[in-house]
Amino acid sequence: MNDNQKSRYFASRDSVEQVEEGTELAPKFDADGLIPAITTDSRTGELLMHGYMNAEALEKTIETGIVHYYSRSRQALWRKGDTSGLVQHLIEMRIDDDQDAVWLRVKVDGGASCHVGYRSCFYRSVPTGEAAQSGITLKFEETEKVFDPAEVYGDAPNPTKL
Amino acid sequence: MNDNQKSRYFASRDSVEQVEEGTELAPKFDADGLIPAITTDSRTGELLMHGYMNAEALEKTIETGIVHYYSRSRQALWRKGDTSGLVQHLIEMRIDDDQDAVWLRVKVDGGASCHVGYRSCFYRSVPTGEAAQSGITLKFEETEKVFDPAEVYGDAPNPTKL
Repeated sequence: MNDNQKSRYFASRDSVEQVEEGTELAPKFDADGLIPAITTDSRTGELLMHGYMNAEALEKTIETGIVHYYSRSRQALWRKGDTSGLVQHLIEMRIDDDQDAVWLRVKVDGGASCHVGYRSCFYRSVPTGEAAQSGITLKFEETEKVFDPAEVYGDAPNPTKL
Repeated sequence: MNDNQKSRYFASRDSVEQVEEGTELAPKFDADGLIPAITTDSRTGELLMHGYMNAEALEKTIETGIVHYYSRSRQALWRKGDTSGLVQHLIEMRIDDDQDAVWLRVKVDGGASCHVGYRSCFYRSVPTGEAAQSGITLKFEETEKVFDPAEVYGDAPNPTKL
């Protein structure tokens, strides 16, 4: 099944020139039917999340302007914020050169996007270059959680898999 | 083979708490041995690329501070800029909550990161919400290429796959 044929928004991928230089939206979904979605704060530029969308999530996000992902851990369409209230409002969507990744510039209700409680999922930095020579210790760049995950998610399963 | 066991930088993934709240780098590579890498301009916050790293590319990037990816089209380690000169110098690396994605904040020699010639790979926006109701036409947000790909890459194969 070609996902692109099911949608009123998506064109088929006919040539490299069309995909790279054209004005048709012709997204490429991977073998699992997913496309990566990179979410940044539209005001600060901070990277908030790296998630995935299936065709339905991408369509619903385009249609509503509210960000929907595909949850790989729950294997279900996921309207971000349904449990937590941390809804992501789309300010701008972009697509990359070969149309296999989507950039979402958003405004977040509640000011946090990470299920651990931080503003961004990328709350720890990794030492590199000379700083890495004596071994790697991650540094917390956010030191205070915006919310308490136990309060917000209760006993819902943690999406992090080992 | 567990990639993490091969590396002097990577710890094994022992618990969700260690992965999310700890200070050990315990990256999760997917079934193909890859981890997504999101690259932004350290000065402007603009999203430049969405690429992939294997364990070797991640190690070399940590060690040298120069960004290395894994090229899926060429199936090889890829020191960005080897052909084009558009080398990416790492300013900061971050890892996400479940350690299955890496954020690279970079400074780019030559000011462009996209093989099509644009500054960012995400040079087109997608209309959403009301603007999408009459159909989707991508809008070029960058209108001038920084370089001519034919000059820089010659007849090297285009990495975009249909």
